[in-house]
Amino acid sequence: MSFNELPAHVWPRGAARQEDGVVTVAGVPLPEIAEEFGTPVMVVDEDDFRSRCRDMARAFGAPENVHYASKAFLTRMIARWVDEEGLALDVASENELRIALAADFPAKRITVHGNNKSESFLRLCVEAGVGHVVIDSHQELAELNNVAGELGAVQDVFVRVKPGVDAHTHEFIATSHEDQKFGLSLASGSAHKAAVDAIGAANLSLAGLHCHVGSQVFDAEGFKLAAQRVLGLYATIYREQNVALDYLDLGGGYGIAYVDGEEPLDVAGVAADLLGDVRGVADELGIPAPTVVVEPGRAIAGPSTVTVYRAGTIKDVHTSHTTTRRYIAIDGGMSDNIRPALYESEYDGRVVNRFVDGEPVQTRLVGSHCESGDILVGDAKWPEDIASGDLVALAATGAYCYSMSSNYNSFGRPAVVAVRSGNTTPMVRRETVEDLLAREYE
Amino acid sequence: MSFNELPAHVWPRGAARQEDGVVTVAGVPLPEIAEEFGTPVMVVDEDDFRSRCRDMARAFGAPENVHYASKAFLTRMIARWVDEEGLALDVASENELRIALAADFPAKRITVHGNNKSESFLRLCVEAGVGHVVIDSHQELAELNNVAGELGAVQDVFVRVKPGVDAHTHEFIATSHEDQKFGLSLASGSAHKAAVDAIGAANLSLAGLHCHVGSQVFDAEGFKLAAQRVLGLYATIYREQNVALDYLDLGGGYGIAYVDGEEPLDVAGVAADLLGDVRGVADELGIPAPTVVVEPGRAIAGPSTVTVYRAGTIKDVHTSHTTTRRYIAIDGGMSDNIRPALYESEYDGRVVNRFVDGEPVQTRLVGSHCESGDILVGDAKWPEDIASGDLVALAATGAYCYSMSSNYNSFGRPAVVAVRSGNTTPMVRRETVEDLLAREYE
Repeated sequence: MSFNELPAHVWPRGAARQEDGVVTVAGVPLPEIAEEFGTPVMVVDEDDFRSRCRDMARAFGAPENVHYASKAFLTRMIARWVDEEGLALDVASENELRIALAADFPAKRITVHGNNKSESFLRLCVEAGVGHVVIDSHQELAELNNVAGELGAVQDVFVRVKPGVDAHTHEFIATSHEDQKFGLSLASGSAHKAAVDAIGAANLSLAGLHCHVGSQVFDAEGFKLAAQRVLGLYATIYREQNVALDYLDLGGGYGIAYVDGEEPLDVAGVAADLLGDVRGVADELGIPAPTVVVEPGRAIAGPSTVTVYRAGTIKDVHTSHTTTRRYIAIDGGMSDNIRPALYESEYDGRVVNRFVDGEPVQTRLVGSHCESGDILVGDAKWPEDIASGDLVALAATGAYCYSMSSNYNSFGRPAVVAVRSGNTTPMVRRETVEDLLAREYE
Repeated sequence: MSFNELPAHVWPRGAARQEDGVVTVAGVPLPEIAEEFGTPVMVVDEDDFRSRCRDMARAFGAPENVHYASKAFLTRMIARWVDEEGLALDVASENELRIALAADFPAKRITVHGNNKSESFLRLCVEAGVGHVVIDSHQELAELNNVAGELGAVQDVFVRVKPGVDAHTHEFIATSHEDQKFGLSLASGSAHKAAVDAIGAANLSLAGLHCHVGSQVFDAEGFKLAAQRVLGLYATIYREQNVALDYLDLGGGYGIAYVDGEEPLDVAGVAADLLGDVRGVADELGIPAPTVVVEPGRAIAGPSTVTVYRAGTIKDVHTSHTTTRRYIAIDGGMSDNIRPALYESEYDGRVVNRFVDGEPVQTRLVGSHCESGDILVGDAKWPEDIASGDLVALAATGAYCYSMSSNYNSFGRPAVVAVRSGNTTPMVRRETVEDLLAREYE
């Protein structure tokens, strides 16, 4: 693939390279955005985001069966897009809930996660009238029942089950996947006890069971194995307690492509497979089939966004007597994208202001932070005619980049803009040094 | 060591446990701070910070020979402490420089780093009259000379040299330690060329050479080897160009203790060794011995600070048929301390509101983020009577915690307070959801 092409699975659906070499997203030339908003700047293809909401809704039968995981990328504007597409919303902290409510997201379509929900957080959930709280511990179950009781409410809940499945191996691995902070163990009977306690609690109503098998999962088997195991628990509850559950929440983890050559998970295919399997297993177990709900974050937000940087210092470094590596430094780095340093994540980078066609040279894209590990693309073969001043964009930066961004080296965080049908709408303004000082006492 | 003791090398110098079991820092009980400011809260022992400034100043002969690396932890209040102690200041970004100037830090005592300084950053350096700019590339050398020329100034500079020394191995490793974004290679002649060009540039004045050998270094040998190599370059320049250099900047990396049993680097001993060695090598080479300057960040800020959290959900998880692990969740996590996730860093945690004396159980301290990797202390033996509501503090969180903190899961960042002689001074107020929304467009 030529360096001037944009891998379709990785770049936003609205991305294209014009005849003059300039890359546009939703018809807006990225150099124009860089000119107007400065760099680094994050550009969100609104139609890409919305189209992935719709793909997920179609795959899982209805928009409300898809709970967008807001931890991936949340602003009020994004919450409104999710609302307009009819999806539900997952939040995992008190502030994520507050931001959703500030965006007028309907509380009934909000599901609340968290391994350590404070009493004030639980109180806000009940007061706001959220659809479901996902109970993560026996301690939380008792506290939520108390809070709901005090407020004279009955709160619908899911119980988060640890099914002991690692989606990356399709195995039941009791001692590894059990050894984590989330959920209640199926194997130990802890999940069963929580479900029974929730059914018996005066101010809770058990509406479903939840599990989550991993991140960046690329086939259906792990989800299916987890679903089978959780449905087994459901069957036990159904027989023992005579209670039918409306929902089976299979969590997130739908894999996306970050670099050329990777294929994203076939969501429609996996969903069909999974839904058929759940119906089949439910029939076998003699239980009413629950509605399957899922929690994609990365699979919706990830591919929608590109981060545009400006290349600065370029240096050729001898890596041996006969080999060199080119270091291209851009004006952001680990403050706006910690994922390469944190997870060894890979990204697809392209020059977006013009065609480049030099001979490929070993290249490393680095940030401007005072840390040698501040590397965005560790090892690429890029054309030798990339120059200082060129705009370099990384694709698929919509998930866990802005949401995990920091002010390391007192960098202000980038501006974020949405693009659609040739128009640009500012979403978040660039952070200034005045913003950084605003919380300091003199 | 009892769980109720506070390892002296790890905790702030002003930390003590009272007879009632409460831990104080600088005479202020941590539970009082938690009560007043909420949790998580970062508590900075001002005298600890200042005493380490003085230790460094004494070890390296004068306060101005010690350049505090502000990337470790920078607020205006901290910049003022550094100024009052007479130290110099390293900044590594335009905003770090702006914050230092906002604190009225004397520009002449500021040294400016960065692998990708923009033209506006270089212009600010010259206009503000910073003491030294550390040149990191040939491209920057030319740009800074132009900028200084336009402003009618002559800018004092260091050249950052890659001496090919990895302090952790004491070896010359041309192909690994050379393969990084910072500096100009000694081995390839690139550093020599930059020094000669700086001497020849009309608007630059070469005042010294800089090198940096690593982080968390625990003996003098790596520094000494690097110093010898850089002095070799100096001798060449001295002979060829007849130019004497005032400074040899040996960078940072002075190791601190994070957990019980680790010993911090003996700064006084290493400094004496290093200064003696530099004088000896300079004598042998027949060059005037330059003043050695250093850039500690972690070694000054790290041990000064503790982060106080409140324990919430506590869970026992089966890790096999016969073993369990206790998960204690606190109300912060990877948003306020990314170091365990990013570097597998270890921390010393203690209950600070009372004595605990239960049997030790395998314990993991986890945060409240929606990510299973959100672990602060991976594997500890802690008393089984730690309870929900207890205050748990991690020590040595002064460096690279606040400065790398994020808003992941829309968490607001902690309050920061300084303590001294029984008094508490707020330094940074807790970040609110309103702060998070302030930069969003409606």
